[in-house]
Amino acid sequence: MNADVTAPLQPGSTIGILGGGQLGRMLAMSAAQLGFRCHVYSDVPGPALDVAHSSTIGAFDDLARIADFARSVDVVTYEFENVPLRAAAAAQEIAPVRPGPKALDVAQDRLTEKTFISKLGIPVAPFAAVGNLSELQAAAERVGLPAILKTRRLGYDGKGQVRLESADALAGAIDEIRGAPAVLEGFVAFQYEVSVLVVRAVDGAIRVYDPPINTHRNGILDTSVVPSPLPAAHRKHAEEIASRIALALDYVGVLAVEMFFLGETGGASLVVNEIAPRVHNSGHWTMDACTCGQFENHIRAIAGWPLGSTERHSDATMQNLIGDDVAGWREIAGEPGARLHLYGKTEVRPGRKMGHVNRLRPKTAG
Amino acid sequence: MNADVTAPLQPGSTIGILGGGQLGRMLAMSAAQLGFRCHVYSDVPGPALDVAHSSTIGAFDDLARIADFARSVDVVTYEFENVPLRAAAAAQEIAPVRPGPKALDVAQDRLTEKTFISKLGIPVAPFAAVGNLSELQAAAERVGLPAILKTRRLGYDGKGQVRLESADALAGAIDEIRGAPAVLEGFVAFQYEVSVLVVRAVDGAIRVYDPPINTHRNGILDTSVVPSPLPAAHRKHAEEIASRIALALDYVGVLAVEMFFLGETGGASLVVNEIAPRVHNSGHWTMDACTCGQFENHIRAIAGWPLGSTERHSDATMQNLIGDDVAGWREIAGEPGARLHLYGKTEVRPGRKMGHVNRLRPKTAG
Repeated sequence: MNADVTAPLQPGSTIGILGGGQLGRMLAMSAAQLGFRCHVYSDVPGPALDVAHSSTIGAFDDLARIADFARSVDVVTYEFENVPLRAAAAAQEIAPVRPGPKALDVAQDRLTEKTFISKLGIPVAPFAAVGNLSELQAAAERVGLPAILKTRRLGYDGKGQVRLESADALAGAIDEIRGAPAVLEGFVAFQYEVSVLVVRAVDGAIRVYDPPINTHRNGILDTSVVPSPLPAAHRKHAEEIASRIALALDYVGVLAVEMFFLGETGGASLVVNEIAPRVHNSGHWTMDACTCGQFENHIRAIAGWPLGSTERHSDATMQNLIGDDVAGWREIAGEPGARLHLYGKTEVRPGRKMGHVNRLRPKTAG
Repeated sequence: MNADVTAPLQPGSTIGILGGGQLGRMLAMSAAQLGFRCHVYSDVPGPALDVAHSSTIGAFDDLARIADFARSVDVVTYEFENVPLRAAAAAQEIAPVRPGPKALDVAQDRLTEKTFISKLGIPVAPFAAVGNLSELQAAAERVGLPAILKTRRLGYDGKGQVRLESADALAGAIDEIRGAPAVLEGFVAFQYEVSVLVVRAVDGAIRVYDPPINTHRNGILDTSVVPSPLPAAHRKHAEEIASRIALALDYVGVLAVEMFFLGETGGASLVVNEIAPRVHNSGHWTMDACTCGQFENHIRAIAGWPLGSTERHSDATMQNLIGDDVAGWREIAGEPGARLHLYGKTEVRPGRKMGHVNRLRPKTAG
């Protein structure tokens, strides 16, 4: 390992990316713009490999291959939060892993994550740990119904989640998640979801992107729109919350914090839903509407470079192209001002993120 | 070959790029953004290979390998104008070559190029063909001195050029270019150089970028600045000139036309210096200051897609990072609003283009 791990990486250095999906692809392209090479490690061939200098196809629990990979790069980052902790630790022995394994540890387990955020004094939805049916019954009494039972690990885009409307659904829900360790989350009556993307440098400098309002379709992000209607005072508070979490994790890179806005409640108005220790789908609008987008800023942060400006120069609506949506590419390509991003995935499947489009408008306040 | 070569290429198609330098690299990244794969063909390893799906290292006159390459792609383009015509023709038998070989034919030979442009009724600097010393003597009388002797082929960035101040330098100049077929170009008293980048689609649609004013250092482009001081009426005329050349070449893709502005002369105010049948260094500012930059628009054009907007949303100064200039990367990375692009070249050599920086400012008229 480099003696001075806080020195900025020279252009020409190699960035290792764990994960070969579209986030890795867009990270690799931003890294190339800054003169870096990328080595992508993935368990399956994926769209990031098409734009990477080199790649390794290997299992994420193959610690010997992970170590070989780490030896071939100058810094390791990841595009998904389910990198096994042992793999991150094996890499960390050889090269800096940024964001550090602590962020992975917290973000991989919903119970750990909610407990961590609560302990910072930041509101989260009511929750209770669930290991079996009797614990679920107790949790349902405490948290109230309706509620959502979520597996502690490996859930994303609505997977590993069961919505519970009444007490007679509890046993079926335990079966549905196959008895996996879980968390019961109470509903909060929120007006809308926003997300705050914060980027933190090796030297602790922090910059925040304007929070978009996010809408979902079938449990998958559909649109992110800036500016959001979030009132200015709450926006400032949302940015503080995200920055405090980044600080508490001694975070380096882009961190996404999803929050619910409950309105002017008299009590807490913002409740953290979840965090993602990586670049995030709700930040894709930054690629075209900000001076320096989330992918470039993540690369700058993990390379020990100065952060780029997160200033928004345009209003924007990011729309995901999910599954068959991508068939509309030709029409979108002809729209003036629409910025089309396709991920190079050849097989279209329902629910698969195939691309996104950023539609820009002149900047308004907000 | 595809039966309907005018149909737009589907995302996931493969774009073949002849040439592996920084222009190929930036073309490949724009192609990836639109969901294409790239296959780069280059005679030496180069920075484009780092971001391409696949690559072939082969000689440009190895027609069998060129044919193999063409069979592996859906369209062929190039990042330099000295692709051998026989190679382009060999590729054209298998896949569409865009821009077509006619543009190569014209742009590879200064004499052919100047003759072609003149015949369109577009002013060029006075010129005369030179094959030997006696022809040079006659040319010098006709064109006048000082003048520049340029080889007809393979000149760029000031290479293959000899400046002639007086008649006693003629014999030495012929020796210096080793008797290669040449053109003597008279000087024109110009105020400044501008370049017009025009993009033309398969269906004939044309869009033009705002012309920057270009400055040079040691014969190599140093800066391109928009808006240029070119008065509006002349700007319109410059755009017409570039569009006429694109039309006459039945051109598809981005074409660069360098022009000298002579001021209000009473006669011709704009004289074409040279054309480049490719994306061009003086268009690098478009990456960050336009809705759709030159690289994406070149890919859109050769893929048969609708063109993107060439509208400029910001003023910009593009500065090349030549040779040791790149050592300033750290300072530039810390400048707010500076967009740094490094080409991933590991060896720094004097005169070598290592990257560029686009400095943006709020848009003014012009």
